[in-house]
Amino acid sequence: MEYRFMGDQVMDDGVVIISGVERERAREMTIGRMKCMSCKEEYFEEKAGTCKECYDEASETEEELKKEIEELRANISFLRLSPPHSSLSQHFSDLQIETPCGRCIPAHKAVLMSKSPVFRAMLENNMEESRSNTIKITDITYEVMFTFIDYLYTAEVTLDEEKAFDLLVVAEKYEVQHLKNVCEKYLTATLNVENSLASFAFAHKYNAKHLSEASLSLILDNMQTLTTRDEYRELVAGDPRLVVEIYESYLAKQANTAA
Amino acid sequence: MEYRFMGDQVMDDGVVIISGVERERAREMTIGRMKCMSCKEEYFEEKAGTCKECYDEASETEEELKKEIEELRANISFLRLSPPHSSLSQHFSDLQIETPCGRCIPAHKAVLMSKSPVFRAMLENNMEESRSNTIKITDITYEVMFTFIDYLYTAEVTLDEEKAFDLLVVAEKYEVQHLKNVCEKYLTATLNVENSLASFAFAHKYNAKHLSEASLSLILDNMQTLTTRDEYRELVAGDPRLVVEIYESYLAKQANTAA
Repeated sequence: MEYRFMGDQVMDDGVVIISGVERERAREMTIGRMKCMSCKEEYFEEKAGTCKECYDEASETEEELKKEIEELRANISFLRLSPPHSSLSQHFSDLQIETPCGRCIPAHKAVLMSKSPVFRAMLENNMEESRSNTIKITDITYEVMFTFIDYLYTAEVTLDEEKAFDLLVVAEKYEVQHLKNVCEKYLTATLNVENSLASFAFAHKYNAKHLSEASLSLILDNMQTLTTRDEYRELVAGDPRLVVEIYESYLAKQANTAA
Repeated sequence: MEYRFMGDQVMDDGVVIISGVERERAREMTIGRMKCMSCKEEYFEEKAGTCKECYDEASETEEELKKEIEELRANISFLRLSPPHSSLSQHFSDLQIETPCGRCIPAHKAVLMSKSPVFRAMLENNMEESRSNTIKITDITYEVMFTFIDYLYTAEVTLDEEKAFDLLVVAEKYEVQHLKNVCEKYLTATLNVENSLASFAFAHKYNAKHLSEASLSLILDNMQTLTTRDEYRELVAGDPRLVVEIYESYLAKQANTAA
């Protein structure tokens, strides 16, 4: 018996002529019904994902990636130092960080120098700080500085929006790029129409490129409400150049959409 | 037109009766032929892996895992300290590690204490080492101690078999579990019939459980050649109890296989 794919009839020579329609029905009733190895659901040809080999490969890859993550996590917890406020670190602290309120944070020159080029320059060049074993902070609160120093030892911090803004400023000042990235990432993820203008101005001030782009594009998507917002009037008063930049980007965007 | 699955004939009422055989042929010629979204190869029902949905999900998961790995790597390179021999660390080193050959390795009490409970006890309890700011090493070479201290700062080391043996011993002595695991893992991965006996004896001496089990099972798989090896005679002479342990495990294994 042979198959041709033309009409939808049976010839008396016993040749079955199967039409597309019949093939569909035939398949649904009889063949081309597969079981997904992952979700165990049945599916048909048009819903096919991968062959068995590729499924097995993918599963292996996932296993290996998860194993690597485990190892990296172990590395991280090994590399973490006891935070400066811990009895262990205070033990042989060779530096005090004095904050505006007068409270001090004990630290270690070697650690601060290896994490921040700014601290490094301060302490290496036998400046006042290095001789006095004290770094006087005038522009950052004890709480923020404490979290910042803690991060230099542990690479751990629980962020909220305010903390992320504060720490990004300190990270920018002391050139701790890793922490700056962490904060910028958090702020980009928590962007919304309400904070987009403030975030754009902030990002511009502290050279946070990703946050700047993300907030700008959110602003451009909501131009209708722009001028109604208090933050807008504040920005016009405070930094009109930035507002101009917004309008220029808006024009450019419209031109692109038109083209 | 309807389908039944009994014979292999065409009835004059136009009912097509399709047999399994014909279904096979029909499929191969017309339907149930799928394209793998991963390798782009064609495959048939019996080689089906996943449905499209699960394929997409799996791809997403892989992307996310890779992203997490990237972030963890960034954390690690941030947490790494400049190794003690670097000018940066020597700068404010508050401790010298004196090795048998007289050469010293500069280090930082705070770092050593946070990585090793043994160093911590030494330095915390105002013992000789803490007062003199010197730790005298009598049983570890400069080269091995240098690599060990370097690891405490960087969590980085390029292992070969000898280095892994040496570092495991030091890691065990100073209770640096993370490095011990790394060495044990390397030695387990490089196990072979030739080094299995030595590795078994070594693992036993330094409480390396995984390495001990892995080498033992490799020994049990090659009992025929066991007594012919020099290492065997050495072990009989040096630590007969271990040889007894091997034979006992062999017996137990045979009993299990028999059961």
